[in-house]
Amino acid sequence: MRKGVLNPDRDRQIVEHELQETGFSPESEKATNKNVKEDEDEDEEEEEESVEKIFESREVPSWKKQLTLRAFVVSFMLSILFSFIVMKLNLTTGIIPSLNVSAGLLGFFFVKTWTKMLHRSGYLKQPFTRQENTVIQTCVVASSGIAFSGGFGTYLFGMSERIANQSGDAARGVKNPSLGWIMGFLFVVSFLGLFSVVPLRKIMVIDFKLTYPSGTATAHLINSFHTPQGAKLAKKQVRVLGKFFSLSFFWSFFQWFFTGGDNCGFSNFPTFGLKAYQYKFYFDFSATYVGVGMICPYIINISVLLGGILSWGIMWPLIETKKGDWFPDNVESSSMHGLQAYKVFIAVAIILGDGLYNFCKVLSRTLSGLFVQLRGPTTSISRTSFTLEEDPHASHISPKETYDDQRRARFFLKDQIPTWFAVGGYIIIAATATAILPHMFHQLRWYYILVIYICAPVLAFCNAYGAGLTDWSLASTYGKLAIFTIGAWAGSEHGGMLAGLAACGVMMNIVSTASDLTQDFKTGYLTLSSPKSMFISQVIGTAMGCVVSPCVFWLFYKAFDDLGLPNTEYPAPFATVYRSMAKLGVEGVASLPSECLVLCYAFFSVAILINIVKDSLWSKWGRFIPLPMAMAIPFFLGPYFAIDMCVGSLILFIWERVDAAKAEAFGTAVASGLICGDGIWSLPSSVLAIAGVNPPVCMKFLSAASNSKVDNFLKGSS
Amino acid sequence: MRKGVLNPDRDRQIVEHELQETGFSPESEKATNKNVKEDEDEDEEEEEESVEKIFESREVPSWKKQLTLRAFVVSFMLSILFSFIVMKLNLTTGIIPSLNVSAGLLGFFFVKTWTKMLHRSGYLKQPFTRQENTVIQTCVVASSGIAFSGGFGTYLFGMSERIANQSGDAARGVKNPSLGWIMGFLFVVSFLGLFSVVPLRKIMVIDFKLTYPSGTATAHLINSFHTPQGAKLAKKQVRVLGKFFSLSFFWSFFQWFFTGGDNCGFSNFPTFGLKAYQYKFYFDFSATYVGVGMICPYIINISVLLGGILSWGIMWPLIETKKGDWFPDNVESSSMHGLQAYKVFIAVAIILGDGLYNFCKVLSRTLSGLFVQLRGPTTSISRTSFTLEEDPHASHISPKETYDDQRRARFFLKDQIPTWFAVGGYIIIAATATAILPHMFHQLRWYYILVIYICAPVLAFCNAYGAGLTDWSLASTYGKLAIFTIGAWAGSEHGGMLAGLAACGVMMNIVSTASDLTQDFKTGYLTLSSPKSMFISQVIGTAMGCVVSPCVFWLFYKAFDDLGLPNTEYPAPFATVYRSMAKLGVEGVASLPSECLVLCYAFFSVAILINIVKDSLWSKWGRFIPLPMAMAIPFFLGPYFAIDMCVGSLILFIWERVDAAKAEAFGTAVASGLICGDGIWSLPSSVLAIAGVNPPVCMKFLSAASNSKVDNFLKGSS
Repeated sequence: MRKGVLNPDRDRQIVEHELQETGFSPESEKATNKNVKEDEDEDEEEEEESVEKIFESREVPSWKKQLTLRAFVVSFMLSILFSFIVMKLNLTTGIIPSLNVSAGLLGFFFVKTWTKMLHRSGYLKQPFTRQENTVIQTCVVASSGIAFSGGFGTYLFGMSERIANQSGDAARGVKNPSLGWIMGFLFVVSFLGLFSVVPLRKIMVIDFKLTYPSGTATAHLINSFHTPQGAKLAKKQVRVLGKFFSLSFFWSFFQWFFTGGDNCGFSNFPTFGLKAYQYKFYFDFSATYVGVGMICPYIINISVLLGGILSWGIMWPLIETKKGDWFPDNVESSSMHGLQAYKVFIAVAIILGDGLYNFCKVLSRTLSGLFVQLRGPTTSISRTSFTLEEDPHASHISPKETYDDQRRARFFLKDQIPTWFAVGGYIIIAATATAILPHMFHQLRWYYILVIYICAPVLAFCNAYGAGLTDWSLASTYGKLAIFTIGAWAGSEHGGMLAGLAACGVMMNIVSTASDLTQDFKTGYLTLSSPKSMFISQVIGTAMGCVVSPCVFWLFYKAFDDLGLPNTEYPAPFATVYRSMAKLGVEGVASLPSECLVLCYAFFSVAILINIVKDSLWSKWGRFIPLPMAMAIPFFLGPYFAIDMCVGSLILFIWERVDAAKAEAFGTAVASGLICGDGIWSLPSSVLAIAGVNPPVCMKFLSAASNSKVDNFLKGSS
Repeated sequence: MRKGVLNPDRDRQIVEHELQETGFSPESEKATNKNVKEDEDEDEEEEEESVEKIFESREVPSWKKQLTLRAFVVSFMLSILFSFIVMKLNLTTGIIPSLNVSAGLLGFFFVKTWTKMLHRSGYLKQPFTRQENTVIQTCVVASSGIAFSGGFGTYLFGMSERIANQSGDAARGVKNPSLGWIMGFLFVVSFLGLFSVVPLRKIMVIDFKLTYPSGTATAHLINSFHTPQGAKLAKKQVRVLGKFFSLSFFWSFFQWFFTGGDNCGFSNFPTFGLKAYQYKFYFDFSATYVGVGMICPYIINISVLLGGILSWGIMWPLIETKKGDWFPDNVESSSMHGLQAYKVFIAVAIILGDGLYNFCKVLSRTLSGLFVQLRGPTTSISRTSFTLEEDPHASHISPKETYDDQRRARFFLKDQIPTWFAVGGYIIIAATATAILPHMFHQLRWYYILVIYICAPVLAFCNAYGAGLTDWSLASTYGKLAIFTIGAWAGSEHGGMLAGLAACGVMMNIVSTASDLTQDFKTGYLTLSSPKSMFISQVIGTAMGCVVSPCVFWLFYKAFDDLGLPNTEYPAPFATVYRSMAKLGVEGVASLPSECLVLCYAFFSVAILINIVKDSLWSKWGRFIPLPMAMAIPFFLGPYFAIDMCVGSLILFIWERVDAAKAEAFGTAVASGLICGDGIWSLPSSVLAIAGVNPPVCMKFLSAASNSKVDNFLKGSS
């Protein structure tokens, strides 16, 4: 099973899941290998029987002993590292791959090194257990999850004046980011989700036996690390990760020296010529996206490339010829009254079409699953892999249960979180939020929030249940729902756009953390970690995230003056997309340029159609159908990162052909190293930018003609 | 032994030999592994005994059958390939590594493919023998040897107006290159050397048993190719070579697109910053010099780097501060009245010091060897490894002879070239040359030529004998001797500079081809090839070279307008050095700027001193002393190519640490691939330049300050 965990065979679910989220989601964070669960359908018996027998001799520490100080120190360090990485990804393309293997490896590495050192000096009081490892994983995931659900690349940054100016609707409400209110906002909205699902944990994990593929994969990874053989492989993987981490870091460092000006440096390298560069077809030498390409399934990389070719290779050049006809020819290229509007709204249409389809799909499966579950005993449903019992509460003592199941259930039920605590916590936090939020966003009335918080537990349950079935968190879809409903309710005159975006944040945080925590409970169940320690770890992790993520964002925001502007290093594409959605919700489609609406309808339908075709085809052929969601991202950004990702794919593909075993064992470690090294370089790079240290050289690419002009100019001026 | 051949363990001899030649020399062309001969001292008995036994069953074709049409077709193709490579190296730095392994591999590959194809179709009349392989090797070496001894990077191009203008002495005689006279000149001077040593072949090879390390190494290489196991390894090596050939070719092709202007492209990449770039410390992404670094011994690479640091890192910046004091401050940076003079003349001083020391050393060893040889029987001299016999002519039938020796001697003596033919040929060619050359260079009187041709046979014999002992051709040293003597004789008023340079060409060609052919006789002796076929092959090869080399040079000359100018892609550094030597010979030292003479004397002495120290130390420590010759090259050019070469060294060093066996077997193949691919790209690149196709993009490196100026300018102008 460990081999499976380390070889992310990318099936369809993670693909859609990840892109559904259009970024980081705690589920994906923990899901290396979606096929783990599918394998499990076949070999569950042998597998499950063996695991806890191996660990039988080891004592399971009490929940208090699982929460060590060293675990939280390591978690804090890793949460800073991953916040930087996630923030960088948020602000460049919004595509965030699963980083759980690197989080797992690095967490294991740090604590293992630490305990080894202590062991040598004789001060080791407590050995490193898999429960402690689970606590770290949970805490890091919760913390860096805030970097995604905090909306720094989406709704929150979409409120800013800078994004508003691009679409020229600053008058309809802006709220510029500032460290104070962001932290306050996050603290207020992020904890609610945790309380909403705590009472349901036993039903989800033990009674319904939901699969939670990501949580299960993480648990297998952690279990494997703590077997002697697994620890050996993990050590090798850490070494590979470290090597590529340094390589990628120094490559970024080297690149930095040549970026002394606009459009300078390797990220503007016209690899395929200047004409192709103009339409954003170039390889931008980004180690991050090469790594992302290595982690993402081939079909995502191909979809992104196809989308890029379709949009920047065919559609935009064609629409450009309609300049002066479809749209005025005197607008700037970045104006939302020109070509830019087509780019943004067609992407929005695809995202919404894909989202709607998948929302309906997951919801129908959730409801049908629940329906079957609650109706009583019929036949077991193969797809969802949970067994149905007469008395679900008695299932853990059923004679069908394996040794592992019994032992796990026993530990899971040992430490209880009282229901009154959960309900009380929810009500207190909801009341506080209802009181505070309207002061932060005066457009967001208290009764909007009340309505959200009344619906939220149901939606949170739906999302947690759906994620358990399909490994697919719909958080961002629920967020979009909030944008449209609250936005329309508030109306254009009463700052509907801002109200919609803020409501999106409130909603997203609840549903996202709800499915998160349930995943963690599953992981804890499989590693014999206490639900109490899971809950506390997630609370601490969330608190960390509420402090670390805004600080990291603030660093980026202060360091890069052009953050969020198109064609810069950090275009934050989804900030524009979210604001445009809010605008659409508030004002309707009247403001779109000519023919744009028709195109939007077309692409909205095509997105749904592709999904239907993909699902109705046999799985053999369905996996060759591109994903509309993945195709939409380059519509706005251009295909340059798709080329990086395809390079990553190609490297992995060749590696798999040359040495499949090594590629399986170390592919993800290499990719993680590339992503982490480049990601962490953004820390020194933003510090340098704030300190006013500019790179000394500009590597510039000029056409031969303008070069000779420049040469003459330089001769004259020197 | 084969393993040794493919693993160029770089001992001291090749180092000095190669740099003595400051470029390509036919000896080095054939010498992969100098330690082959040293190994042979130990295991000669077993080794020699086995080789001919293995080949015993195979028929040795008659000399006429050794000379096949297909061999010369392949030779012609390879001679074009290697002429391009050697020409490129000539015109960039003048450092030319041993390319014999790639020549051997490629020759073997082409004919083997050809015969395999014929064999399948049933048309194969004659199998591919090692004799035929020797014929190809000899022909290619003779032909591409002309690209070096033709002086396109040294004396011949030193006559041109372009080089003369740099030192401002165009008035003292120039002769611009032109296809006609260059071909004529080469035909007149290149064949003489062949005839001068033909009568002596038996004395050199059989009686004196001279080692000729390079010739021996080549013979071992060829013998190894024709054993089944060797052919298998050779096939693998060819595949590796091919892979890196394409890689290097496409990398050069890719680079080309970004060179649309002066100082554009990767070759101007300020890897270590703009300040370091100004002093030519940068990695210029040249696959050629990375490959050269992999072939050259570590000590050469380190010497070149040390020389670069000493000159461009320390001396030139210091001398620059004396501007206006030591030399006028209103001269251009490339003028020979400014800093440039120090660069050139200090390099010349080191080259002459090193040359003088080694000339004396080799000559004294040659004379003492000859003296011992001719005195009669004493003890055998271990260093020279030839045995002394009462009657040297009877040595091949001595009972001490092994089976191999007997068989080889029998085949070597079977086909005879009559002495009257050799002497007659020499006299006819010398007479023709004496008649024709004064018409080409009216400064070169007929009696100068006569004197050269009277001395030449003795010098040719000395050089052939010395190369046999030490693997060290002194051709360029004899050439420099001619520059000074004939230049001084003619005098400044009567065009002494041009006379000197032309005399250099005459002299160099004789002595270089003389040692060449003797090497080939040794190779032929060891592969049972007929001396007749060797001679004819070399005649044909030389004729090819006399046509191919000038054409290749002409292509470069026409394609690149700035050929020979400092700080360009093709600075042809030794053209300036040779012209400066001629100037020194004719005018003395009066024209040098202040303090330059003192520095020259100092470096001249230091060069001799370092050599003495190097030779007097135990060989253990001597090999850590840098080579003055290697240090001199970057004095003029800058250390950028030294950095490339050190990168090559580093790659090989790490490779050897990681997988010594593979590095040994494939290191030279990788290096050859890199050199050949980049070298052959110069064919399409010069064709493109002649066709007027300019690269579309300029990759420019500007300081942040001038970049903002340029950005403003571009905004204004667009």
